[in-house]
Amino acid sequence: MTYINIEPKITLLGAGPGDPDLLTLKGVKALQAADVVLYDALTNEALLTHAPAEAIKVYVGKRSGEHSFAQDAINKLMVDYALNYGHVVRLKGGDPFVFGRGYEELDYADSYNIPVSVIPGISSSIGVPGLQQIPVTHRGLSESFWVITGTVSSGALSDDIYQAAKSNATVIILMGLKKLAEIVAIFKAEGKQNLPAAVVQNGSSDNEKLVVGTVSSILEISKREKIQAPALLIFGEVVSLHPSFKTMIKQYVAIS
Amino acid sequence: MTYINIEPKITLLGAGPGDPDLLTLKGVKALQAADVVLYDALTNEALLTHAPAEAIKVYVGKRSGEHSFAQDAINKLMVDYALNYGHVVRLKGGDPFVFGRGYEELDYADSYNIPVSVIPGISSSIGVPGLQQIPVTHRGLSESFWVITGTVSSGALSDDIYQAAKSNATVIILMGLKKLAEIVAIFKAEGKQNLPAAVVQNGSSDNEKLVVGTVSSILEISKREKIQAPALLIFGEVVSLHPSFKTMIKQYVAIS
Repeated sequence: MTYINIEPKITLLGAGPGDPDLLTLKGVKALQAADVVLYDALTNEALLTHAPAEAIKVYVGKRSGEHSFAQDAINKLMVDYALNYGHVVRLKGGDPFVFGRGYEELDYADSYNIPVSVIPGISSSIGVPGLQQIPVTHRGLSESFWVITGTVSSGALSDDIYQAAKSNATVIILMGLKKLAEIVAIFKAEGKQNLPAAVVQNGSSDNEKLVVGTVSSILEISKREKIQAPALLIFGEVVSLHPSFKTMIKQYVAIS
Repeated sequence: MTYINIEPKITLLGAGPGDPDLLTLKGVKALQAADVVLYDALTNEALLTHAPAEAIKVYVGKRSGEHSFAQDAINKLMVDYALNYGHVVRLKGGDPFVFGRGYEELDYADSYNIPVSVIPGISSSIGVPGLQQIPVTHRGLSESFWVITGTVSSGALSDDIYQAAKSNATVIILMGLKKLAEIVAIFKAEGKQNLPAAVVQNGSSDNEKLVVGTVSSILEISKREKIQAPALLIFGEVVSLHPSFKTMIKQYVAIS
């Protein structure tokens, strides 16, 4: 193998929440110019069709419970491919910097003096509620939104969730479904039993599923409807704007 | 004029932060199918080239200090065009639901039983820091980010900024440049003089400009560098990852 004329570079590309049409034009152009694509579990494989047929496509997915690549291995693979093949597009679900460990990849590439470009993606934190016509902000209901990971590296809940439960922000929690019972308890401890809440499974994909309720009821409803990961949690008055929230309240009143 | 075969519908479309290549493929398809496009001041007009030449394009921009359309007038215009011409694409800067008053437009259309689709856009709150390679989250530095408007409808500062200044979140404030002195005072009152801070003017556009500093210095630096609206404020340890932060600290030490 010869290394002549190889110009290593890396593009951290946000693929968006799942629907391949939520990729940006800039993302399409990057994929078209890729020598190698390293892609995640949450990436829709239809996106790979934008890359040249001869480009190398490597799955480096991480999904809880499955065999997965460690972050160190991904970093090394990425740099190795860039040095040997040129332009590596690192295709990541959502936005590269929203709990995507994108900066770790950027930093690692930087330590090899490999230039890195970043192309933002539609973050599911905003886009998934939006596609459900739940606005993360709305005059009179919410002047801000707070996006938090449900799972920090230690495995514990983020302390930020305790702070968020006290706030007026719309609270959006990614990767938090397994901890829903704990999270709901935190909101209850703040007296927010009646705060509207929603869970969206597989946002923007064909098997998308939404349940709405309140802090008091959302855990039971999620279990009854067999909601599974990946899922996004929304806590805030804005959830009350969803048509199914009004239906749910009526049913609840009818049953009680 | 005849109304036969008019099927009114509205698409709320997020244009992204400015760079026309940050529009999604879904957004391109919506524009290609538009009979009418209503667009904002913050929208790059290059995006309009995706719409058919014969589509009606109407500027309904709102920009502080200029003559502007009231929200009521935009709502009425949007519905009127939909009833008379069919598919209206309401093209909005960033994401339609991030301080975009998108839900008010959706709600108004709904009151006329006009179907509304939502296509999320890259929110500048995430994308603009990202393009500057400032990650809104990063292991060990930030487990969450909190996005707040600097200007609520009353003209006052949002109370949420007081809460945010107490939190561990990366705090991102949109439309807050004019209130930077007040905002900085709030962070100082929480003892956060040394918290890294950045201001990005015209994010993702040709005239993009970034300044970095700390809570103590960012107001003076922004003034000295003549930063103007539209601008986005970032408060958080993640700002320290930007190369110019290290340079700034070195200069500061050299001067002191």
